[in-house]
Amino acid sequence: MLETKVPVGISARHIHVSQADLDTLYGEGYQLTVKKDLLQVGQFAANETVDLVTEKSSFKNVRILGPVRKQTQVEIALTDALKLKIGIPVRESGDTKGSAGITVVGPKGTVTLEEGVIAAGRHIHMSIDDAQKFGVQDNEIVKVRCDGERGLTFDNVLIRVHENFRLEMHIDTDEANAAMCKNGCTVEIIK
Amino acid sequence: MLETKVPVGISARHIHVSQADLDTLYGEGYQLTVKKDLLQVGQFAANETVDLVTEKSSFKNVRILGPVRKQTQVEIALTDALKLKIGIPVRESGDTKGSAGITVVGPKGTVTLEEGVIAAGRHIHMSIDDAQKFGVQDNEIVKVRCDGERGLTFDNVLIRVHENFRLEMHIDTDEANAAMCKNGCTVEIIK
Repeated sequence: MLETKVPVGISARHIHVSQADLDTLYGEGYQLTVKKDLLQVGQFAANETVDLVTEKSSFKNVRILGPVRKQTQVEIALTDALKLKIGIPVRESGDTKGSAGITVVGPKGTVTLEEGVIAAGRHIHMSIDDAQKFGVQDNEIVKVRCDGERGLTFDNVLIRVHENFRLEMHIDTDEANAAMCKNGCTVEIIK
Repeated sequence: MLETKVPVGISARHIHVSQADLDTLYGEGYQLTVKKDLLQVGQFAANETVDLVTEKSSFKNVRILGPVRKQTQVEIALTDALKLKIGIPVRESGDTKGSAGITVVGPKGTVTLEEGVIAAGRHIHMSIDDAQKFGVQDNEIVKVRCDGERGLTFDNVLIRVHENFRLEMHIDTDEANAAMCKNGCTVEIIK
């Protein structure tokens, strides 16, 4: 019998930063400090935050997730994009070509991104062992069922397999609220 | 062959007010004025707005929907409730017993609601004729499928039948954004 149950981690709006942009935002050579480790190995919520600013609106104190990456990337919900009055695509992490721009303000400086703002496509992280237990492969698309008062079934959920990944479905706050799903709730893969 | 396709109307955060509360908010005997008629007969977005205030946060310029009702009711998304730092139930319109309270601020006065703040349960309005065409009944619970890049299938969708209703599925902004569904997009009833 294949496994089907997956715990959920809800992604609130956040930013990943490159070292070059962190240098601008927080000062030359600045190192992020760990506020809280995330489930995925090596990933953490940093103590550091930035403001996200558009012509029409802004969000203050948006959490940086570490460690630094090659490229700065802002992940927000579509509800957030409506408030900021920008149009953003739904993308897999890292695929930011032609996405929306934004101004990022830190205590020491400001970075203007021409692109880099996306809504993250829903996906499930799992290890190679887990992939065998679930009978799925890297890059496979599955459906995922959330039970409850606001139950629903998500189409187009991407499976991401890596030896370092821990089992977790990532959805954003719009998706979590639409399903009335809380952090740590369990969903079911339907093939 | 039964009909299955239903157009969607997305409910942004809004408030319905009683005449007594409108008197307090906008002055004795005040009459709402029509900014835009809604699809449902007699319903309209008013020019008038209020501010919604909690201990921790607020929303400014929240639209009043008219006409006045027996009871004041605030409908917001769960994302909105998180910003306001209040817990709200998902309820059918009118069922506000034991729901969250809030302070409503108008240009002439303030109303403190002990209860009345809900997230509206997703539902479909339809006429008696439509109910026959769709093969459903008042108060029936159906599933509804939204196609597309963020496609999903909602469980627990309430059918509401009335001779004056026009065919329309109502979802809130969290649900619309989770499904990447825009006003007027079409969804499909699955029985």
